[in-house]
Amino acid sequence: MSLPAKRPRVAVIGVGMVGGSVAGALRAGGACHEVVGYSPAPDGERALELGLVDRLAGSAAGAVELADRVVIAAPIPAIPDVFRAIAPALRDDALITDCASSKLSVIAAAERELGAAFERFLPGHPIAGSERNGPDAAKPALFRDKRWLFCPVNATQAQWCEPWRQLLAVTGARFSEVDPDLHDRVFAEVSHWPHAVAFALGAAIARGGLADEAVRFAGAGLRDTSRIAASPAELWAGILLDNAGPTLESAVRFRGELDRLIAALEQRDRDALVEILDTSSRWRRRIVD
Amino acid sequence: MSLPAKRPRVAVIGVGMVGGSVAGALRAGGACHEVVGYSPAPDGERALELGLVDRLAGSAAGAVELADRVVIAAPIPAIPDVFRAIAPALRDDALITDCASSKLSVIAAAERELGAAFERFLPGHPIAGSERNGPDAAKPALFRDKRWLFCPVNATQAQWCEPWRQLLAVTGARFSEVDPDLHDRVFAEVSHWPHAVAFALGAAIARGGLADEAVRFAGAGLRDTSRIAASPAELWAGILLDNAGPTLESAVRFRGELDRLIAALEQRDRDALVEILDTSSRWRRRIVD
Repeated sequence: MSLPAKRPRVAVIGVGMVGGSVAGALRAGGACHEVVGYSPAPDGERALELGLVDRLAGSAAGAVELADRVVIAAPIPAIPDVFRAIAPALRDDALITDCASSKLSVIAAAERELGAAFERFLPGHPIAGSERNGPDAAKPALFRDKRWLFCPVNATQAQWCEPWRQLLAVTGARFSEVDPDLHDRVFAEVSHWPHAVAFALGAAIARGGLADEAVRFAGAGLRDTSRIAASPAELWAGILLDNAGPTLESAVRFRGELDRLIAALEQRDRDALVEILDTSSRWRRRIVD
Repeated sequence: MSLPAKRPRVAVIGVGMVGGSVAGALRAGGACHEVVGYSPAPDGERALELGLVDRLAGSAAGAVELADRVVIAAPIPAIPDVFRAIAPALRDDALITDCASSKLSVIAAAERELGAAFERFLPGHPIAGSERNGPDAAKPALFRDKRWLFCPVNATQAQWCEPWRQLLAVTGARFSEVDPDLHDRVFAEVSHWPHAVAFALGAAIARGGLADEAVRFAGAGLRDTSRIAASPAELWAGILLDNAGPTLESAVRFRGELDRLIAALEQRDRDALVEILDTSSRWRRRIVD
């Protein structure tokens, strides 16, 4: 399948850090006829001011009315409501994707709420983010050289990978396909649970009686380790709860390792400690920064 | 007290990442007559090749024989042996400092091993590092705009802060004084325990069955959170064991927070989860990256 001769009209629902970056990249790349945005106030107005969208709609349904393509970049807990709101307003040939960092719950909501349009829904996940949020954190270059995953549940959905790759090529992302169940387990492991660990570390320091000294003496190690602990609380509570099953599986493994490490430290067991640290160090050195 | 009219001869024991950077900064800044280094092979030879030191000594004792100033930057577990080795060779007016990231155990070893020279020992800790080590990771600019702490135990030791500040001014560090007991509790909280958490996270992922996918899909969040999990295992086992008391106090607080977070996730208790995440987020936003 190729792009329609005329450039598509794209609706972006949720023009915060992720959606605003998608919108901005599409506009900057001249990839579409127009980008219509919608976010609850004040984000929508701010995205318009920043030039991330061509125009604003007054509602999610209003944004999709004329759209050939719909990108949903709302916070996870809001996504079922967005599906419900847009379903009656979608064009019969509109293609829909989303940007949420967990996929099974979004797919279930899409199947429940989108009706016939579920066949034209392609679950997606651009892997780029920051501890900041909102349209002011949006950057059209956010996805350059980053992975953008598609997680179709069947062959019907899989046929939309190609048209989305073509439209989103201007973002500079590298596209690939992943099974949605594997996606959710991998992202629990590499993103959701590591965020939870960073939050727990930050909260323990905040409540520990040395919080001021910790701000004063934080070196590069703590800065890196706790950076994502500054992420927005409401947003991340939504993500963790949405992917709670796989995240708790990662949590159980982590707590086991943590308990072994603490026991080794309590018993001054150097060999046991070195084994844990070395296992970690050898794995982490495989990631090229 | 001011610097002697002639520029001092400095011995650096341990010319890896930290000691090599000190030596390189002193040489580059023309702050001393010569920098004599010692490290067990092959680090010493490599530091000489890299131009971090003027010459190499064949032993720690040999390095300090003529030195006005002695900087000990050996790994923590080796420090008592270094004190023992250099004590008989030290000049009567030599000033000694160290770079270890925990202070009470180093102070105890110095008191035990240095004899009369303990009065001329100033416990020190430059707060700069990286997940790399060895002379190839040394950079003369490593300490620029970083904190360098002195932790004198009494007024006699405190009088050496000023001559060390003068000599080390070429590193570009910002010097301050901290009580050694507070130092160790703060660094357990801001460095040693966060390293342990990162190591536990890395080890859990390495053993978790999704280790390859985690390398492939790691985004900025995991990269930052786990960066220090690539740190050298032997070195960090030494640090954690050396400051085990305060580190275990930080561990207990962290595990309490972690258990609350896991319970909130298991019970799908959104309010409890948001409270923890928000406590963390508000604290972390006080640190300017």
